[in-house]
Amino acid sequence: MPIRVTVWGENVHEHKNATVARIYPTGMHTCIADALNQDARLVARTATLDQPEHGLTKEVLDQTDVLTWWGHCAHGKVDDAIVDRVQERVLQGMGLIVLHSGHFAKIFKRLLGTSCALTWREVGERERLWVCNPGHPIVQGLPRSITIPNEEMYGEPFGIPNPDEVVLVSWFEGGEVFRSGCTFTRGAGKIFYFRPGHETYPTYHIPEIQQIIRNAVAWAAPAGAAWRDVLNAPNAKNPPETIRTPDPNAHGESAGGGGFR
Amino acid sequence: MPIRVTVWGENVHEHKNATVARIYPTGMHTCIADALNQDARLVARTATLDQPEHGLTKEVLDQTDVLTWWGHCAHGKVDDAIVDRVQERVLQGMGLIVLHSGHFAKIFKRLLGTSCALTWREVGERERLWVCNPGHPIVQGLPRSITIPNEEMYGEPFGIPNPDEVVLVSWFEGGEVFRSGCTFTRGAGKIFYFRPGHETYPTYHIPEIQQIIRNAVAWAAPAGAAWRDVLNAPNAKNPPETIRTPDPNAHGESAGGGGFR
Amino acid sequence: MPIRVTVWGENVHEHKNATVARIYPTGMHTCIADALNQDARLVARTATLDQPEHGLTKEVLDQTDVLTWWGHCAHGKVDDAIVDRVQERVLQGMGLIVLHSGHFAKIFKRLLGTSCALTWREVGERERLWVCNPGHPIVQGLPRSITIPNEEMYGEPFGIPNPDEVVLVSWFEGGEVFRSGCTFTRGAGKIFYFRPGHETYPTYHIPEIQQIIRNAVAWAAPAGAAWRDVLNAPNAKNPPETIRTPDPNAHGESAGGGGFR
Amino acid sequence: MPIRVTVWGENVHEHKNATVARIYPTGMHTCIADALNQDARLVARTATLDQPEHGLTKEVLDQTDVLTWWGHCAHGKVDDAIVDRVQERVLQGMGLIVLHSGHFAKIFKRLLGTSCALTWREVGERERLWVCNPGHPIVQGLPRSITIPNEEMYGEPFGIPNPDEVVLVSWFEGGEVFRSGCTFTRGAGKIFYFRPGHETYPTYHIPEIQQIIRNAVAWAAPAGAAWRDVLNAPNAKNPPETIRTPDPNAHGESAGGGGFR
Repeated sequence: MPIRVTVWGENVHEHKNATVARIYPTGMHTCIADALNQDARLVARTATLDQPEHGLTKEVLDQTDVLTWWGHCAHGKVDDAIVDRVQERVLQGMGLIVLHSGHFAKIFKRLLGTSCALTWREVGERERLWVCNPGHPIVQGLPRSITIPNEEMYGEPFGIPNPDEVVLVSWFEGGEVFRSGCTFTRGAGKIFYFRPGHETYPTYHIPEIQQIIRNAVAWAAPAGAAWRDVLNAPNAKNPPETIRTPDPNAHGESAGGGGFR
Repeated sequence: MPIRVTVWGENVHEHKNATVARIYPTGMHTCIADALNQDARLVARTATLDQPEHGLTKEVLDQTDVLTWWGHCAHGKVDDAIVDRVQERVLQGMGLIVLHSGHFAKIFKRLLGTSCALTWREVGERERLWVCNPGHPIVQGLPRSITIPNEEMYGEPFGIPNPDEVVLVSWFEGGEVFRSGCTFTRGAGKIFYFRPGHETYPTYHIPEIQQIIRNAVAWAAPAGAAWRDVLNAPNAKNPPETIRTPDPNAHGESAGGGGFR
Repeated sequence: MPIRVTVWGENVHEHKNATVARIYPTGMHTCIADALNQDARLVARTATLDQPEHGLTKEVLDQTDVLTWWGHCAHGKVDDAIVDRVQERVLQGMGLIVLHSGHFAKIFKRLLGTSCALTWREVGERERLWVCNPGHPIVQGLPRSITIPNEEMYGEPFGIPNPDEVVLVSWFEGGEVFRSGCTFTRGAGKIFYFRPGHETYPTYHIPEIQQIIRNAVAWAAPAGAAWRDVLNAPNAKNPPETIRTPDPNAHGESAGGGGFR
Repeated sequence: MPIRVTVWGENVHEHKNATVARIYPTGMHTCIADALNQDARLVARTATLDQPEHGLTKEVLDQTDVLTWWGHCAHGKVDDAIVDRVQERVLQGMGLIVLHSGHFAKIFKRLLGTSCALTWREVGERERLWVCNPGHPIVQGLPRSITIPNEEMYGEPFGIPNPDEVVLVSWFEGGEVFRSGCTFTRGAGKIFYFRPGHETYPTYHIPEIQQIIRNAVAWAAPAGAAWRDVLNAPNAKNPPETIRTPDPNAHGESAGGGGFR
């Protein structure tokens, strides 16, 4: 059974900026979904900000194994209730691939808990991504470095918690560096942040970039059935072992079955 | 110069439950602050939920090196604006010690991004904490294990991201285990979660428990001056190296100096 | 194509101890290999200490995707040259599952760099393993806890580097705890340490224990082709960018193509 | 009481290469020790390869809080028995700062367990180190980036286990990147790898580089008394809890008090 992917796109720049519209005439999300659908392991559909519930209804998410996220100028328009829903699904096991300016998406900040800030410069300089671990699933079939002729620069410090693994680091012509490919685990969910993809450059048309996203999606697919009760905090009333010395002071004002939150 | 500690207490159970009031007649926060003030390295004051801004004004936090947090039945009453403020200070470098039921505090969930859920049982069983790394600063001067006669049980799975280090693991009489002492880094801030401390047992009167909290506070003190602009995302307009091949397509609808959020 | 597994067994206790011989009449390694061969994803063969090159010739290792390792009383008899060879293959991407007393195997100490020490007691007490992350591939299809009626005790501190993830923690009847299921990454290789399996108890006959080992093997299988030159340190003579200000002092007593070691 | 530092230097290039001798007339180790002794927190002495026991007798190591290590062309001449001794002291809590070509030192490979390989180029190009976490103790008082006019290049992939934290990343004029400042914990010991310092350039005369090494030494100092029995694996014969169902099969061919190794 193929991995079910939902490619989420903010889909705003494409309608406001002539350069973006020319590079991605059917939207960045469609370009990314098309690239994913070239892989027999994957079946991708799209969802966008302007759809009801941003296209991320409970039904859609329940049928999504991996979600990819590209947003930029409209992060603030994403409904907090949808962020809650996506967070819960990630904790249950749905993979999440956060692309480029998605570093400031509500869902990324929510899952990481840090600033997710960085330095940046938009002059279209050369970027070269280096593989730190050639054995990692996400870089299979890729060369040791990938050069992008023109990209926005992102520089350190990148305000993230220490990643599980730094898979890629970028070199920029202007003199900066960046941890461009980072993995995280949150609950049962695997997360990959991947830096390239400024809207005014044709980055998502580059075969190596597409291959990395395909690999990342396959890597992030859940290992098994969803951890449905991931948010529960059950009262384990019946201990597996005999408790011989209980204390009489356990009070009565209990939190009930779910704990105080 | 001593480490400046603010001991935050929810201070609700102490006024509603006779057992808690008897064990902690001046409040759990006072008991903890007194224990910290026995250490010449530390100077501790308290803050509570019922104070204006929960006692955590900007001035108080700016003068706090390490904040300890105990909350339980009133997590939901903590103002989100104060959570924002505490989060920023942690990212700037303020240490944070989260105690027991603080696992469900807004600030802990905010910084970790996960469920922070666990299983629990309140019958007052025996708990034994084991040291996983006797070389860690937080367990200096402690024996290899500490037995608490009566405590609430917390069991795995504990819904946290993989910690920087698991310093202590608990054994419970009823048959469960728990990662009871876990370190995290978020931004410039060091975080320690420490499990024991149910309100109906005299846990914070136990010398070894007090010693662990003292050590944790000293460990979590910031390394240097606060990282004041931790939330900034500056435009690095002037690259340190010459960019020879800029791209003309860099668009004009800029995010300004702080990036889109 | 199935995952090719080599099950390495020390195969000494089976020939010296009547209890072990009765529980594992064809050897512990055969019991484990049989359990793996029940899984259509896997094809397992065995290798033992007494074979030439301990059964781990270059050809065997080159055709091994995942190696499992059980050793105890004869760790010192394992040839250092074979340890070198296994280490290189792990760094190239071969998975490694280290079982029980393998914590003191040369290959485990070599890959981790720490003491790998622990406390222990051999009276056949009850052990209960708890799942810390129900979403992890290694615990798919398993209950939240597994009880083993009689086992050797291993207790903290366990002298390992901080694992990538602690998947399982054990509770022991005698009062100790242990990080019983730990993952590590070394080079391109994935490593899983799994605690249970003392030779005088029928642990490897328990279905849940077999399922964990099967899952661990599938999890540890390499992502792609072997990283064959993992030990190389090449001179990158031709930089991708022009160097405008070389220094004349670069000396001539070069390390050659592989660096000084 | 000041932190006691031993600065270990291979001290071979200084006697064979005129450039190195001119830059470091009293040896690289003396230059580094002098820089450390400028800090009132530290008191540094030196040790070199050519001394008896390489200057690292048991007495010297027992009185060393932090050891710094620079070696290159003579890694192979370091006695394995001394490597064993240094490893044990690190696990007991002694800090270790590994400099530049020390990435291939026996002690570094021993503690990390991986290839420690990298790519390299020696033309004296420009290097710029970027701070990834401005709140880390090791970069206190430093600017966000440091430029070194001429250095050897080290490039990814760097064959190390995932570090506790990547504190610094380097940009090279020739187009590569490198994780140049990485922290690790092994046993009770803190380890910092710091990339710059090729012998034919005056890197250790640069004030910012000196400051990083001073900070790293202070950061790596042990938290408390040495964990003297770190290699022990004691038989915990007397369990803290009553074992009600021991198994009679526990065999007699015991490993003794230290376990089989």
